[in-house]
Amino acid sequence: MAIGIGLIGFGYWGPNLVRNFVSAGGARVVAVADKSEAARDAVARAFPGLATYESPDDLLKRNDVEAVLVATPVSSHHALAAAALDAGKHVLVEKPLCRTSEEVIDLIARAERARRVLMVDHTFLFNGAVQSIASIIGRNELGRVCYVDSTRVNLGLFQPDVNCLWDLAPHDLSIINHIIDSEVIDVQATGYGHMDLSRLDMVFMTIHYADNIVAHFNWSWMSPVKIRRFMIGGIAKMLIWDDLDQDQKIKIYDHGIEFQPQEQRNTIIPQYRIGDIYSPRVSRREALAGVADHFLKVIRGEEHSIMDGRKGLQVVRLLERAQSRLDASMAVVASARSQIVGKAAS
Amino acid sequence: MAIGIGLIGFGYWGPNLVRNFVSAGGARVVAVADKSEAARDAVARAFPGLATYESPDDLLKRNDVEAVLVATPVSSHHALAAAALDAGKHVLVEKPLCRTSEEVIDLIARAERARRVLMVDHTFLFNGAVQSIASIIGRNELGRVCYVDSTRVNLGLFQPDVNCLWDLAPHDLSIINHIIDSEVIDVQATGYGHMDLSRLDMVFMTIHYADNIVAHFNWSWMSPVKIRRFMIGGIAKMLIWDDLDQDQKIKIYDHGIEFQPQEQRNTIIPQYRIGDIYSPRVSRREALAGVADHFLKVIRGEEHSIMDGRKGLQVVRLLERAQSRLDASMAVVASARSQIVGKAAS
Amino acid sequence: MAIGIGLIGFGYWGPNLVRNFVSAGGARVVAVADKSEAARDAVARAFPGLATYESPDDLLKRNDVEAVLVATPVSSHHALAAAALDAGKHVLVEKPLCRTSEEVIDLIARAERARRVLMVDHTFLFNGAVQSIASIIGRNELGRVCYVDSTRVNLGLFQPDVNCLWDLAPHDLSIINHIIDSEVIDVQATGYGHMDLSRLDMVFMTIHYADNIVAHFNWSWMSPVKIRRFMIGGIAKMLIWDDLDQDQKIKIYDHGIEFQPQEQRNTIIPQYRIGDIYSPRVSRREALAGVADHFLKVIRGEEHSIMDGRKGLQVVRLLERAQSRLDASMAVVASARSQIVGKAAS
Amino acid sequence: MAIGIGLIGFGYWGPNLVRNFVSAGGARVVAVADKSEAARDAVARAFPGLATYESPDDLLKRNDVEAVLVATPVSSHHALAAAALDAGKHVLVEKPLCRTSEEVIDLIARAERARRVLMVDHTFLFNGAVQSIASIIGRNELGRVCYVDSTRVNLGLFQPDVNCLWDLAPHDLSIINHIIDSEVIDVQATGYGHMDLSRLDMVFMTIHYADNIVAHFNWSWMSPVKIRRFMIGGIAKMLIWDDLDQDQKIKIYDHGIEFQPQEQRNTIIPQYRIGDIYSPRVSRREALAGVADHFLKVIRGEEHSIMDGRKGLQVVRLLERAQSRLDASMAVVASARSQIVGKAAS
Repeated sequence: MAIGIGLIGFGYWGPNLVRNFVSAGGARVVAVADKSEAARDAVARAFPGLATYESPDDLLKRNDVEAVLVATPVSSHHALAAAALDAGKHVLVEKPLCRTSEEVIDLIARAERARRVLMVDHTFLFNGAVQSIASIIGRNELGRVCYVDSTRVNLGLFQPDVNCLWDLAPHDLSIINHIIDSEVIDVQATGYGHMDLSRLDMVFMTIHYADNIVAHFNWSWMSPVKIRRFMIGGIAKMLIWDDLDQDQKIKIYDHGIEFQPQEQRNTIIPQYRIGDIYSPRVSRREALAGVADHFLKVIRGEEHSIMDGRKGLQVVRLLERAQSRLDASMAVVASARSQIVGKAAS
Repeated sequence: MAIGIGLIGFGYWGPNLVRNFVSAGGARVVAVADKSEAARDAVARAFPGLATYESPDDLLKRNDVEAVLVATPVSSHHALAAAALDAGKHVLVEKPLCRTSEEVIDLIARAERARRVLMVDHTFLFNGAVQSIASIIGRNELGRVCYVDSTRVNLGLFQPDVNCLWDLAPHDLSIINHIIDSEVIDVQATGYGHMDLSRLDMVFMTIHYADNIVAHFNWSWMSPVKIRRFMIGGIAKMLIWDDLDQDQKIKIYDHGIEFQPQEQRNTIIPQYRIGDIYSPRVSRREALAGVADHFLKVIRGEEHSIMDGRKGLQVVRLLERAQSRLDASMAVVASARSQIVGKAAS
Repeated sequence: MAIGIGLIGFGYWGPNLVRNFVSAGGARVVAVADKSEAARDAVARAFPGLATYESPDDLLKRNDVEAVLVATPVSSHHALAAAALDAGKHVLVEKPLCRTSEEVIDLIARAERARRVLMVDHTFLFNGAVQSIASIIGRNELGRVCYVDSTRVNLGLFQPDVNCLWDLAPHDLSIINHIIDSEVIDVQATGYGHMDLSRLDMVFMTIHYADNIVAHFNWSWMSPVKIRRFMIGGIAKMLIWDDLDQDQKIKIYDHGIEFQPQEQRNTIIPQYRIGDIYSPRVSRREALAGVADHFLKVIRGEEHSIMDGRKGLQVVRLLERAQSRLDASMAVVASARSQIVGKAAS
Repeated sequence: MAIGIGLIGFGYWGPNLVRNFVSAGGARVVAVADKSEAARDAVARAFPGLATYESPDDLLKRNDVEAVLVATPVSSHHALAAAALDAGKHVLVEKPLCRTSEEVIDLIARAERARRVLMVDHTFLFNGAVQSIASIIGRNELGRVCYVDSTRVNLGLFQPDVNCLWDLAPHDLSIINHIIDSEVIDVQATGYGHMDLSRLDMVFMTIHYADNIVAHFNWSWMSPVKIRRFMIGGIAKMLIWDDLDQDQKIKIYDHGIEFQPQEQRNTIIPQYRIGDIYSPRVSRREALAGVADHFLKVIRGEEHSIMDGRKGLQVVRLLERAQSRLDASMAVVASARSQIVGKAAS
């Protein structure tokens, strides 16, 4: 029997969710809730057969809705997901899962109590390049991973309810949690707001891990060009994933480092080895189709979830940690500026 | 009369200096000092007419050496430049000018006392793209500058005497000091060493300025690809300098931000304007030829120095400030790691 | 009143036509005919409200179908368009308009007799870059146009009913007819077939025009990479349109040629001027939306057609001329090969 | 004993020859002849130890000159090489070897008579990428080679003594002769001159080979951008050599064609296989260093020549054949234009 699907929130991402669950085997999309009349009209035009509701409660009342997709602004995630779980529905929530780790922990508890699936839509885990990378690292092709350096910048949409960190970081953090298994021991973050320091549109972040691994991130809504470059430095090889390169999304550089004793200078310095470059073919399947398929299989008990509440919690905790470093850094900057203004005025 | 030039240090950069001063009008290269016999042999082969010395003192004794180029490791810059100034020579020192600001201040004092020119070779100030950028910003084409974001990464040579900060940062810092005139109010920096935390081969740094400007830097010796991308975000336009792009070193994006009141969400959010892209023709003259020319003209009193001791001091002070933040950050990381090891052991 | 639209042929391009005419103002798509049941089922799923027919005749009988879109293989274009015109419908036919110029001439006559619009879908004329180019040339920004050099290669689909010329050339030929107004005085063409010489998957063609203009084309279904590069050399400036470049579809090079008397060599040789590069912003509107809009406006008498039967005839005549040169060239090759085989056998 | 080398012609390429023969083991450059005093002065500055002569005859009289490099305009190649061979010198001549195949045949005969080495400098055969390609094809990695498609365009220097064909084609033709071993059965060529049809600055050429291979070439001095792209289509894999790509000069596409019977359409059409992409590391040794080394080894009998007179003859014959097709094509164009002018005048 096909699993009945209801969607809450038909904004930017909602139509993609409907389209992919319509195409997925074993699902039947039955209803959409959105408080905006324009959004409900859009549902009627694009997907004529679907029931529409102004209130999510009415959608949750339907017995044929067995699983709910929550694609609303993050501030409403917790309340909507909690209501759905309490109503006995499985839930797939857009990233980031919640605003706070407390909210996530509460959802995890509710899901366990209700014996229902709680999943966060870390879409990139089903991106063909990320799947290739995970498998390359799994086979230890790069050798020990030393660093990740990700640049995800664009002339992006300003979002009134989140800053650039909460908008862009969940992508990279869910990916990095998928491929690096080491304890976070330090997080640094600072940022910039073109308008004011409370509305960050650029964020720079560094994570130090226990096993001598570093990850650096450059996120921006204010770059004139779009860059999606994710580099991984291993001891044996290095890898670049450029999501905008149509032919070679992934390049593996057979460039290695060899630590050699060097008499001459009384010190040990590394030598490079420059080798071939290899681009594996990457699956071009739409990532969201993989998410839909995975969600349905996890509900049916056919797969273990790779993006459950615990995974969502890991990302939200990193976001909280980064936000707290951002707050501290911005406070230092604001205070220094006000002193300068004070000096100038006196 | 052509100015007599002596070079101390015929390593990586020295041959380029000789070649450019040989071609410059108004100079006559007469002698080279290098303690390595192999280096002196190389001088003899490449530039048959030049006198060579093992000791810099012998070079400084020559009366026909009126100006000295110091192209040795940074640890010897102060002593050699001081000796040259005290011997009444003009001095051009490779970047960074010295290891410490104290050393720089001492050199500045000696130069003033000796009434001789002290110049630091911030070569990039004579790069055609940097000259274009300075002129674009000078004409206020970008509007108020908001951010700089520079990536200077490569599979670079490990240098035993300096880390990646002291090797790569002087380029970007001399450029940024040339185009941004605002007080530094905060510096953040962290880094990574593939071998150990005291040998940093990757450094990430952010500078906050008083006038709501931010600058972010990504320096690495461990990238599989060479990237030289310097972005400047202005309120009116944005600019990218890609030093590896043969056709379009500079692109100016007529992309702007317009702050508009937006009733709907009770907040002010920016709107984008996407426009044309323009690439001015950039001079391809070798930057070092410009440096040589400038040094000779400053000696002859024909130009004011744009890279005097004070400019060198500005860069060294930023390096010191960054190094102190790096030390603090690395100490936090080291301490956290040792605690984890401790826990694991107990 | 919205114009009633019927589509014949729901294959590769048909769904795009329906989608764009559905969105266009002033049109109402009412019916689709396709002899394939699978195609009719696809219509029912994607566009639930549309009537479907196996036979185009049944579609043409509907009075509410005032205009017909013909998106079938080229061999059926003439018969279907003729039937539609004779039934008093306006007709938009996919490129190339017909297999032969005789067929086109016949359609033009029928359209005139029926006083109906006959249009060929030269979609690229509504591509934002082509519109920019036409306007740049119209303003004489490039100076006199000297050459066009177009490369349109890909790992393309083998089409059983046409060769690579009839598949790819109509794009370039319709564009070039739009921007070059000079008599064709010579056409050269040769090609290659991986399987055999009668199935050409690569074609190279050169057109010489009366006014000292040349156009060269490189079309291929067998390139490992997709290239869409269209260069125009003018006396004053040069232009490159790279349809795959997301940021800079058009680049105008302020590179010019200056003819100077040169004493030294007793001859006149040109000198280059290398200047700035400029990329105008290009409209990203889907070209087919422009086609739909134009077709409807021409029907309503609001615009003059820029791609009527005469324009279609111009392209088909060039295709015929090229095909005849291809045939001759392939015959020479085949004969030479058979002689070699003969020699080897004797 | 080091072989004594004399150079005739110190223009654009001469200094590169001297530099590489100076560095080559087993050679001693002793003299340079150039009729221009400025050129001889340049020799004195750059290579102080060399004897210079106005007349090549004086250079040929020196007994310590055992091998002569001819780097003059092509019109003088035959006379100078003949004189050198007759004087008992080995000769390396710049490409193209001569103006006509008769001249080449005469040189070959003289070399045999004198028992001296006659070599043509097809430098690209020692380019790292070409060497890789030859070895890839030699190992049959691409499967049967079907096509070559080369684009070699630039804003190039107008050369008063040769057209764009004789300037650029020798590179590609020497490469293609190196990797394709099949009889040429047809050559097509046409071109364009911005000034007039007798000074071609753009040439398009196609070669058909006996074994169902085609090669297409696009040469131009009038392109706003530099393109050096050489594609090879094999049945099993395809290869692109982009000489301007610093990281991936060669890419091998594991894209194949599979010919399958297809019931549906009553025809056999090919299917594609899209696979990985692989970039072998390519030697960055300067090609001319390889040429110098090879010339010296062939003189010493240590290597068989890969670019002897016969190889030079092969290239010159293709050039002659192409030029004759160009002449015919340009005559057709000129005649058609004059008829149009005639019509317009009458």
